[in-house]
Amino acid sequence: MFSRYCFAVRSFHTSTAAAAKVGFFGLGNMGLPMALNLKKNGFDVTGYDVSPNGIKVAEEAGIQMAATTADAAKDKDFIVTSLPATKHVEDTLMKQDGIFKNAKKGTIICDVSTINPHASIKFAAEAQKYEMIFMDTPMSGGIVGAKNGTLTFMVGGSIENFEKARPLLTGMGKNLFHCGGPGTGEIAKLTNNLILGISMVATAEGMAIGEKLGIDPKILKDILSVSTARNWCIDTYNPRPGNIPGTPACRNYEGGFMVELIRKDLALALEAI
Amino acid sequence: MFSRYCFAVRSFHTSTAAAAKVGFFGLGNMGLPMALNLKKNGFDVTGYDVSPNGIKVAEEAGIQMAATTADAAKDKDFIVTSLPATKHVEDTLMKQDGIFKNAKKGTIICDVSTINPHASIKFAAEAQKYEMIFMDTPMSGGIVGAKNGTLTFMVGGSIENFEKARPLLTGMGKNLFHCGGPGTGEIAKLTNNLILGISMVATAEGMAIGEKLGIDPKILKDILSVSTARNWCIDTYNPRPGNIPGTPACRNYEGGFMVELIRKDLALALEAI
Repeated sequence: MFSRYCFAVRSFHTSTAAAAKVGFFGLGNMGLPMALNLKKNGFDVTGYDVSPNGIKVAEEAGIQMAATTADAAKDKDFIVTSLPATKHVEDTLMKQDGIFKNAKKGTIICDVSTINPHASIKFAAEAQKYEMIFMDTPMSGGIVGAKNGTLTFMVGGSIENFEKARPLLTGMGKNLFHCGGPGTGEIAKLTNNLILGISMVATAEGMAIGEKLGIDPKILKDILSVSTARNWCIDTYNPRPGNIPGTPACRNYEGGFMVELIRKDLALALEAI
Repeated sequence: MFSRYCFAVRSFHTSTAAAAKVGFFGLGNMGLPMALNLKKNGFDVTGYDVSPNGIKVAEEAGIQMAATTADAAKDKDFIVTSLPATKHVEDTLMKQDGIFKNAKKGTIICDVSTINPHASIKFAAEAQKYEMIFMDTPMSGGIVGAKNGTLTFMVGGSIENFEKARPLLTGMGKNLFHCGGPGTGEIAKLTNNLILGISMVATAEGMAIGEKLGIDPKILKDILSVSTARNWCIDTYNPRPGNIPGTPACRNYEGGFMVELIRKDLALALEAI
């Protein structure tokens, strides 16, 4: 098994040794910084994106872009899909010019998107027919984590496949959780986001009610941070302006992780059960 | 200002020095262990309870019981009220045979009940007319915290009054928060319990959905404990049997903090705004 460290050693000492080839689908807010980290860590990255603007931005950032999905899938060691929803992942995998019909045998496909776990299980089974490996590897850590390479990946697949994906995932993130068999990465992610979404509403309401009733919102934040209500939305991502520097609340609620995305994740939990 | 340490020194060296007198109203699941801790810490405690069984249990535990509210209120340095709801606190304070009409001037009344903060503000103003001090000092930490003297008190009142109540409160608990003026202790408590109640429902549903979809509930608990969903209900009071020893889930959901009480607290948040 090769690690990020081994890659660095290989590229440094033997300029003829081939770097592992990665096809990267979806160079958006999350995908682009992840692809750039892979490149920085010695991977030979080819990108694909449907949006002309996405292509332009990625090329300007130094990512070589393929013209078709088939080209991006061909002759790769790893493929990463970072797409908005289940349907996009399904199309990218299943279509005539998609991954399954064009990638080589043995290709390791890591889907970092947040999608329906039942679909992930189906894709993993379908990949086996093509003698490829598909794993659900959704992430948490947001845009900052993607840029800094500190993402957490929740991985669903056999332990053998988890180990095979490790060098790729550690080229983009810091913490890996092996959650169990196919689909369990997505189950962990949608469960997390279900609880997170509800917690954020509860925290925002609780902070607003407390302040309206007359308690200082900084004191309230300090008390709640060490009481039975404590959660990430209180002590790290507090929704009250002025409480925690760097949070959206302290940047005039400037857009980041979109409401539409948490709404999608909550709908996923409803769909999946 | 005298501390718990000073008490210990006083009772040890000068057997004639009078211990501070406390009238304790409500010797229930929480009140009795708190009163016993006060006694252990050198206070001269007289109890009052409406329930014949409560009186019997308290007397057997060694608490001297008064026959009337007036007797329990008379000639005390401190009074503690530990009662189920706003109405009981109001009656105990306001009635002809209650605290305001029978306690001496200067008595410091700490209400550890969880009640409507608007009522606490009213009681604090009313106490001033009698030249007494009323503070809202609700607690968190449960029955275990009450027994071990490790409760947290959220205190609403002036900083001077907070300091006057400190020796009493540290005779029953470990952490004191000064939340601001009258009512802010109750505001912190009801805000905490609002977020806590919602978090517990979200956590129980999230854990159940995840398990039903096929992830190992211990792995899920470990992942959620360090992810953006993390909260006290996940990492300390996990609702899935087998996940955290000592939780209600690991004691076949044996009764402790009653559903009726969190329901009351959620209603309080609705009432108060």
